[in-house]
Amino acid sequence: MTIAFLARLPANTTDQWLEALRAALPGERIVAGLANDADIAVVANPAPGQLATMPGLRFIQSAWAGVDGLLGDPALPVHLPLARLIDPGLATQMAEAVAAHVLALHRQAPAYRDQQAQGVWNPLPQPPAAERQVGLLGFGEMARASAALLEKLGFRVCAWSRSHGDLDDLLASSDIVVNLLPLTAQTRGVLGRDTFGRMKLGTSVINVGRGGHLVEADLLAALASGQISHAVLDVFETEPLPADHAFWPHPAITITPHVAAATDPVSASARIAANIARFRRGEPIEGLVSPQAGY
Amino acid sequence: MTIAFLARLPANTTDQWLEALRAALPGERIVAGLANDADIAVVANPAPGQLATMPGLRFIQSAWAGVDGLLGDPALPVHLPLARLIDPGLATQMAEAVAAHVLALHRQAPAYRDQQAQGVWNPLPQPPAAERQVGLLGFGEMARASAALLEKLGFRVCAWSRSHGDLDDLLASSDIVVNLLPLTAQTRGVLGRDTFGRMKLGTSVINVGRGGHLVEADLLAALASGQISHAVLDVFETEPLPADHAFWPHPAITITPHVAAATDPVSASARIAANIARFRRGEPIEGLVSPQAGY
Repeated sequence: MTIAFLARLPANTTDQWLEALRAALPGERIVAGLANDADIAVVANPAPGQLATMPGLRFIQSAWAGVDGLLGDPALPVHLPLARLIDPGLATQMAEAVAAHVLALHRQAPAYRDQQAQGVWNPLPQPPAAERQVGLLGFGEMARASAALLEKLGFRVCAWSRSHGDLDDLLASSDIVVNLLPLTAQTRGVLGRDTFGRMKLGTSVINVGRGGHLVEADLLAALASGQISHAVLDVFETEPLPADHAFWPHPAITITPHVAAATDPVSASARIAANIARFRRGEPIEGLVSPQAGY
Repeated sequence: MTIAFLARLPANTTDQWLEALRAALPGERIVAGLANDADIAVVANPAPGQLATMPGLRFIQSAWAGVDGLLGDPALPVHLPLARLIDPGLATQMAEAVAAHVLALHRQAPAYRDQQAQGVWNPLPQPPAAERQVGLLGFGEMARASAALLEKLGFRVCAWSRSHGDLDDLLASSDIVVNLLPLTAQTRGVLGRDTFGRMKLGTSVINVGRGGHLVEADLLAALASGQISHAVLDVFETEPLPADHAFWPHPAITITPHVAAATDPVSASARIAANIARFRRGEPIEGLVSPQAGY
């Protein structure tokens, strides 16, 4: 059987993926780029329209957890099963990034950094973690792993998703709001003026979802008014973040360059191989995407 | 019975302590300052020589975990039992501070902060926590609480104390070294040229012990050579850190103003009351200090 690996990645990254996929799928022929005889495509940012040109295609497996880019391809063959990557290693990384950012905000790292820059020695009141509520937008595998770790650290945690929890209550009662939602038509712009206005004055926001979740102008306004006290942003509408963007020098914004959870080709290939085996055996596949839901 | 509370603290902090001690010890008379009829002193930075003037004194309870200041009083009545504060709330706070600083270093917050200041988008390789070793200097209640939390976060953890572990091995194999030792004649200056030279090139250091553990000039030299890549300092030889100190503007030093673990009068008073009850009943007291060992 033939599997096509369709990717727009740096050459050395593509080579790492091919090596990892071939090691994990020794019974399959893996080719880079289009292959007329392929019935499965493993995709990492394929060129729009590319999947529509494969006559024998029966299954599409994303190498990434987020499929908003794929679903944005108007020529995507939506009648075929599409799976997003479910990788516990990815959830572990994400939970660690969320814990690092939440702890930094909880222990007031931005305030102490500003004080250091001014040579000011000023101990601030420090509430215990049990008095801080962290509200998670999203309740998929990444949010659940993050919730479990935050609870081990002693924080109060609540979560909201399409099918879980109460958004108004989360926004009104959380001190730190973390976005872990998939990007869909319903969630685009969820971090915007309306949502910010329903949060407590001085809430902190962490966006590790997608850049499209955030209305950038609304964040700048909410930081200026003090409605939001600090934002940690790992993802952006345009990546890399343009050099002249207002976020770079902003004293109340912490920027990381989309590093919260990086897909590891070896770990991911093991999960992809298991999913392809399920497909070949006619078993239910893991991470099946609903194009209507958008994830 | 009468207990003297001897403190040099801001007036409102002294009042908080008196209120908390009186609530926790309803059967005792608690007076602020010297009292001739007191047989117990609870002390928070008392004036040197003060304890030597109390004729009926039989037991000294520190309101703080560190007793290096008390033991530095040449007139301290060393024949009397002296207890340092053992407070699980304090260990919880310390573990949280250590976790926050370790995670920030692990996830490369200082490097990303520098990149943001320069408007540079550059994702860095991110090893998993299981590939980072954190070496703890100290193995008392604060170090044990920190080790437990770091292990929950997935780090490899080792520890060394006078009676536990191998210092050479810890220094040679750790990526991040955290000082949680008591300050004694043996541990003064432990974070100095010799110790830094036995660490791996580029090790990070976190000092949440005492300022006297660190040889400040040796740290500046080790940062300049790259032997140490970053230092997080919560404690200093002189506090507040003087305004003209070279640490304030140093790009490889993160300063917090002695906030890793702040004693809470209410939580501490409950532990102090239990220890005083042990003393009154003739039972072994908790946190008994050995003046020879220095803690």
